[in-house]
Amino acid sequence: MAQQHLEPTNPTARPVPADALAGYLRAQATEFLRALRLHRETGPGPNGAGAHTAQNAGGGEPGVDAARALRRAARRLSGTLHTFQPLLNAEWAETMRPELAWLSGTLGLEHSYASRLERLLQALHRLSGSSAFPAQSAGATVAVAAAHAARPAGAASAPDRGSLTVGAAKAGALLDRQLTLARTRAHSTALQALGSARFHAVADKVALLASEVPLEAAAATADLRPLAAAAEGRLTDAVAALPLVTAGHPYNAEALVHGLAPDPAPHPQDAPWHQVRLLLRLHRYAREVLAGDGAPVDVRLLAAGQALNRHRDASEAAAAAAQAARTPRIAPATAYALGVLHADQRHEVEAARYAFQHSWQKEAVGTRP
Amino acid sequence: MAQQHLEPTNPTARPVPADALAGYLRAQATEFLRALRLHRETGPGPNGAGAHTAQNAGGGEPGVDAARALRRAARRLSGTLHTFQPLLNAEWAETMRPELAWLSGTLGLEHSYASRLERLLQALHRLSGSSAFPAQSAGATVAVAAAHAARPAGAASAPDRGSLTVGAAKAGALLDRQLTLARTRAHSTALQALGSARFHAVADKVALLASEVPLEAAAATADLRPLAAAAEGRLTDAVAALPLVTAGHPYNAEALVHGLAPDPAPHPQDAPWHQVRLLLRLHRYAREVLAGDGAPVDVRLLAAGQALNRHRDASEAAAAAAQAARTPRIAPATAYALGVLHADQRHEVEAARYAFQHSWQKEAVGTRP
Repeated sequence: MAQQHLEPTNPTARPVPADALAGYLRAQATEFLRALRLHRETGPGPNGAGAHTAQNAGGGEPGVDAARALRRAARRLSGTLHTFQPLLNAEWAETMRPELAWLSGTLGLEHSYASRLERLLQALHRLSGSSAFPAQSAGATVAVAAAHAARPAGAASAPDRGSLTVGAAKAGALLDRQLTLARTRAHSTALQALGSARFHAVADKVALLASEVPLEAAAATADLRPLAAAAEGRLTDAVAALPLVTAGHPYNAEALVHGLAPDPAPHPQDAPWHQVRLLLRLHRYAREVLAGDGAPVDVRLLAAGQALNRHRDASEAAAAAAQAARTPRIAPATAYALGVLHADQRHEVEAARYAFQHSWQKEAVGTRP
Repeated sequence: MAQQHLEPTNPTARPVPADALAGYLRAQATEFLRALRLHRETGPGPNGAGAHTAQNAGGGEPGVDAARALRRAARRLSGTLHTFQPLLNAEWAETMRPELAWLSGTLGLEHSYASRLERLLQALHRLSGSSAFPAQSAGATVAVAAAHAARPAGAASAPDRGSLTVGAAKAGALLDRQLTLARTRAHSTALQALGSARFHAVADKVALLASEVPLEAAAATADLRPLAAAAEGRLTDAVAALPLVTAGHPYNAEALVHGLAPDPAPHPQDAPWHQVRLLLRLHRYAREVLAGDGAPVDVRLLAAGQALNRHRDASEAAAAAAQAARTPRIAPATAYALGVLHADQRHEVEAARYAFQHSWQKEAVGTRP
């Protein structure tokens, strides 16, 4: 299987001692504390001054960067505790993991809503084919543009011709209202979480972890590779269960099946892909643990992971469009635009599966000796 | 260019005399008259007893088969007159062609509406993922199923859960109403056409053609191949102007651009593809003329043609869904379903372009020496 071909878990390579695990956990704990300090210094973050630039990836807003770094470290700690749990103090790890998962989940929600809105407004922009939309603007600008887009065009042509574009604008305004509300709530929840006793207990434990990792006695002579290989095995098993033959066939129209079914959100067919996304992440973290500081970036794993992120984002965006369409008393033109948008995002789901299948096949071929 | 590789127009092969053209025209004229006789014997066709089975391809309904054969012969006569016009009596050909085009256009409309409805209802069925829909039924059954689909499911779940599926059913009923009306009108128009003096004049001319083809004097020493090659040249030029690089890249999301633009129907980006579809047909008929009775079926041309037919059908179905969404006073759930349906059919347009690109590339490779 694939785990025999990947360098870090190759059984012919040398054993990896538990020191590597301890070093990794200490480094992530340190990173967590650094991000937390930065977060406290830079204020409440995205819902403060730069409310609509949370999705400004790689951008200079320190609050956003700190929140992202905090989530990143929390995910890595949680994932590593999961994969290498047999080598760690069981009680400690079992208490720690759900707390870290709660934290990264709570902190991630606000960002999710912001990027979902961004994705949906950009899709509306693309679907409207209107030059009134700025091509690469941040959320707020697009939302405003969406609300006013092509009204001149609509006014210039026959009234029924303009109605669908007014529909796109209204759909954009509706999504903006609903997702901004959800995001504001998530922001408050995150702020409350960061001020809670529960959070301080986690932070204290992470601070302890930064200086001392509670390894089991057995860890002294252990090799990390079998546990990393087991994580990879869970991934490859889950990938093998995916409908990859269908996914590799372009335009299979699979993702939109049940697009008008009674309960279109969440899509049950997406669940195995979401699961693979999580397992791929655990595999990636295990590779980082084994490789230490010199972890080579596997571009294929990266591409596969990005495809699965896109899959998740499009799946959730499609659900949000379907959800918005259930708002009482919306205009038919708004509902029509939301229907087009929903289908467009399900199309994106299908495209992401195709991209995943593609990068995954490449990996299997590329790493064979 | 490709015309040098295809057997019938290969300049190294032997000249093809005008006899082949005369023979082909006589054969098509005879076929036209046979179909016309059959049509008169079997009655008014699709809108008679079997009103909802017009799209029952290959099926046993004689009226439908006769109408199809009539259109088929009229298209071949018209196309052949176009491609080989320099060898035919100019005045005769110039009078004849628009009449044949009028006839095949008029006779084809009813079938178009019927198959458009069939396509849209089957798509609604697929999108509803409902087992209440029979998988492979003809129009009427699907329409009835669409109108009632999943109402039990909707009733069993929460009201808002059911609304979208009720939307699909209502969308199906609305499309059924609108396209059946259009089809009924097209049927009347076709019947009127078949009883008109204009039609009888065409039929008389075709009857004359069946016995004598009005060739120009120059035809006696002419070679048909340069004119066939010119038809192929027009095709390859038009194909070269298509955005095939984009089309060959799966999930390029090009077909749904402007999906919410002020005037979504007809889609201007579809026009060059429709044009290629017509030129491909002319090329195919020219090949038939040159090859005579032993015309080998070029499976690649066939696949390319089928992809372009699918492109045209999906394009028109998408426009019909968008048009239906402009019906005043429809429910938001209906409009939502029509939006999903529109996007689904635009997705089909994109898939058809991908399929065309694929089969066309195959052809270019496959016929190179």
